[in-house]
Amino acid sequence: MQEKIIDIEELLEKKRYAELKKYLKDLNSADIPPLLDELSEEQVILLFRLLSKEDAAEVFTELDSDIQEKLINSFSDKEIKDVLDELYMDDTVDLIEEMPSNVVKRILKHISKDERAIINKLLQYPDDSAGSIMTTEFIDLKENMTVEDALEKIKKIGVDSETVYTCYVLSMTRKIIGVITLKEILLAKLDEKISNIMDKNVITVQTLDDQEDVAKMFDKYNEYALPVVDNEERLVGIITIDDAMYIMKEENEEDFEKMSAVIPTEEAYLKTPVYKHIGHRIGWLLILMLSATLTGTVLAHYEAAFAVLPLLVSFIPTVMGTGGNSGSQTSTIVIRALATEEITVKDWLKVLWKEIRVGFLVGSAIMVVNAIRIYFLYHDVKLCLVLGLTLLFTIVVSKSIGCLLPIITKKMKLDPAVVAAPLLTTIVDLCSIIIYFQFATAMLGI
Amino acid sequence: MQEKIIDIEELLEKKRYAELKKYLKDLNSADIPPLLDELSEEQVILLFRLLSKEDAAEVFTELDSDIQEKLINSFSDKEIKDVLDELYMDDTVDLIEEMPSNVVKRILKHISKDERAIINKLLQYPDDSAGSIMTTEFIDLKENMTVEDALEKIKKIGVDSETVYTCYVLSMTRKIIGVITLKEILLAKLDEKISNIMDKNVITVQTLDDQEDVAKMFDKYNEYALPVVDNEERLVGIITIDDAMYIMKEENEEDFEKMSAVIPTEEAYLKTPVYKHIGHRIGWLLILMLSATLTGTVLAHYEAAFAVLPLLVSFIPTVMGTGGNSGSQTSTIVIRALATEEITVKDWLKVLWKEIRVGFLVGSAIMVVNAIRIYFLYHDVKLCLVLGLTLLFTIVVSKSIGCLLPIITKKMKLDPAVVAAPLLTTIVDLCSIIIYFQFATAMLGI
Repeated sequence: MQEKIIDIEELLEKKRYAELKKYLKDLNSADIPPLLDELSEEQVILLFRLLSKEDAAEVFTELDSDIQEKLINSFSDKEIKDVLDELYMDDTVDLIEEMPSNVVKRILKHISKDERAIINKLLQYPDDSAGSIMTTEFIDLKENMTVEDALEKIKKIGVDSETVYTCYVLSMTRKIIGVITLKEILLAKLDEKISNIMDKNVITVQTLDDQEDVAKMFDKYNEYALPVVDNEERLVGIITIDDAMYIMKEENEEDFEKMSAVIPTEEAYLKTPVYKHIGHRIGWLLILMLSATLTGTVLAHYEAAFAVLPLLVSFIPTVMGTGGNSGSQTSTIVIRALATEEITVKDWLKVLWKEIRVGFLVGSAIMVVNAIRIYFLYHDVKLCLVLGLTLLFTIVVSKSIGCLLPIITKKMKLDPAVVAAPLLTTIVDLCSIIIYFQFATAMLGI
Repeated sequence: MQEKIIDIEELLEKKRYAELKKYLKDLNSADIPPLLDELSEEQVILLFRLLSKEDAAEVFTELDSDIQEKLINSFSDKEIKDVLDELYMDDTVDLIEEMPSNVVKRILKHISKDERAIINKLLQYPDDSAGSIMTTEFIDLKENMTVEDALEKIKKIGVDSETVYTCYVLSMTRKIIGVITLKEILLAKLDEKISNIMDKNVITVQTLDDQEDVAKMFDKYNEYALPVVDNEERLVGIITIDDAMYIMKEENEEDFEKMSAVIPTEEAYLKTPVYKHIGHRIGWLLILMLSATLTGTVLAHYEAAFAVLPLLVSFIPTVMGTGGNSGSQTSTIVIRALATEEITVKDWLKVLWKEIRVGFLVGSAIMVVNAIRIYFLYHDVKLCLVLGLTLLFTIVVSKSIGCLLPIITKKMKLDPAVVAAPLLTTIVDLCSIIIYFQFATAMLGI
């Protein structure tokens, strides 16, 4: 990439624009946006004018919104219109959502009244709903068409459709009555009726369905596009598999952030200002800090014990750490299994039983290793027993909490990734401290 | 789903097979495998025979390998052949990899010599490589073909190709010289030469490329299929976007598991036996338990301090918890940013500088809240200062380690998710204990 930037800068400097135009044409349009990131504002504006119409639109949708804004501000009316004409409706809507109002006004000036009506409607769908990510450019066929008619129609409107590979057969009232792929059309006889070869079993999603559920349906049904219908079952848009892939990626990143007590964001790390990073992290840190003081209070309650035997304190990190780690192993597995629908809330007893057995066996092994370690260090059988039993119980308890907490939050219609993962450590810490000092005070007689 | 199972069981019991056949035909083939999971072995075998040929193959690839094995064992030779004929090469290879050798022998008997050669080659690619997931059924065109010739060829071989929507133009030596989509072919004039409308700028992947990198390329280039070439740049297979989506999902789940100190597995939670769950978890738990004893040893070193002031012990959970949480916030964000290539190893200084600022400001806020809390509880200004400064330093240090550790492991060509995430807590625990007791002994004069 560094080489390409040097090439481009050289050509720009020497004003060899014809050569530069050819150079850009030979690049894949997906490789251009990262290059623009490295250039100055003036260079970007200049370079953008050298792109072919199709490349320009493709590159434009991939740029960060601040660069998009600068570009639009530098555009002539004709140039704005050229870019907008090449954009699909969902990309136009994304653009409008991110631009400040003066830029939006300029954009809307170049959009026809009909299209403005569609955009307005798309803007009203809630964030993260199927309606908000669908595009309205699709191919609709009628059931009495022949394969020849269908091919004719695809050739006519295909150039403006996001995909031509899945076509929907609509009734007079625009309800979906069938779906057919271009492959099926192409492999059929020209005089075959569409109604004879279409698949009447159509998988649809609703405009208000959550985008994550939509992405999962792509994975389940192996479709390349899914139709979006309104509450009267009329086709209003389509979502394509590349959108689904993008959503899956975004939702996954969100889950990673949620599970480490960070408020998720779509912004790139390096471009997010410090104050925003703080905003995403401080809330949970405060909550977790304050809840950890509860464990501290419980610990203070056993002051007498470690005043008599200060050595007890030195095992706190092992006990708390082992509890935390074994709990988070389980909670992560269970949270993901719930997210991918590998298990449901109803399976709670099966999961709990499995985790108790795993916890008991893992705990027994850990108990033995630790007992040996402690015996060699302190030659104290009672201490071996206290620590061993503590670890065994802590592991069983933390694995049980680790599987029940996500299932309970799911049952309460909360997001297990948000609630269960960060809170788990605090709860498990508290339990392990109680287990530890109960065994210690009981067995060591202090 | 429960209703469907009841319907099916009723029809099976009453032996109304014609009706059942129609019932199954009206279901989407993706909905059938979960239903089979709920039925008995005999019922599954019976039901499978009632599926249409195409559905049977689609359903078969989605089944768990133990059910696949039972089905094959129940099949006549003719039935095996029917299913195998409908499978794409990559699915056949997956099947062969999972079946025991006696079943493999039966399968291979029904595969032609040419196909056996292809399968043998596919089996030799390393796990997780592009070669191991590609399929060999694709559409190849010649550059001197017209659009009409191309359509003719697509119609002829399309039914056996995994996708007809992306076609590759090959030279005489089977090197890729161009790519063209069915949309472009369909929208062009019938007598147009393919060489005039094909895209010469072809994105390819190598047979030995890692499957995760391949999945990322789909995301980057918005392609529906990518060609796989050998080291002489000859086309040997293709990977389609639905494979990429599946890989992305698998790799994500693996990352979740790795980051919570679990050895990743592809097996479903409930179907994995207890002893395997133990195997996936015990290793890291032992390592982390033993490394936590280091923190314990350091803690023992400050025995004199908390013997004088036992109250100090009760703040250990807050200090260790806050350090752990703020460190894992940072490490998760950095590990994911590295995975999605939002940042690279070269950005380490920018990332560190950002995290130090975030840590300082978040730490200051936490310091103030905690100082107020402690003042109200204990009316001890010195203790406020000790705890406040400890938390501030702990947060800055743990955020610094949280960003450097993943970057260093990446630089060392290790997987940051495996190494950095589990080890982080132990390292941060150790640091926070040292910071805490250094401040405590210095400022409280003990």
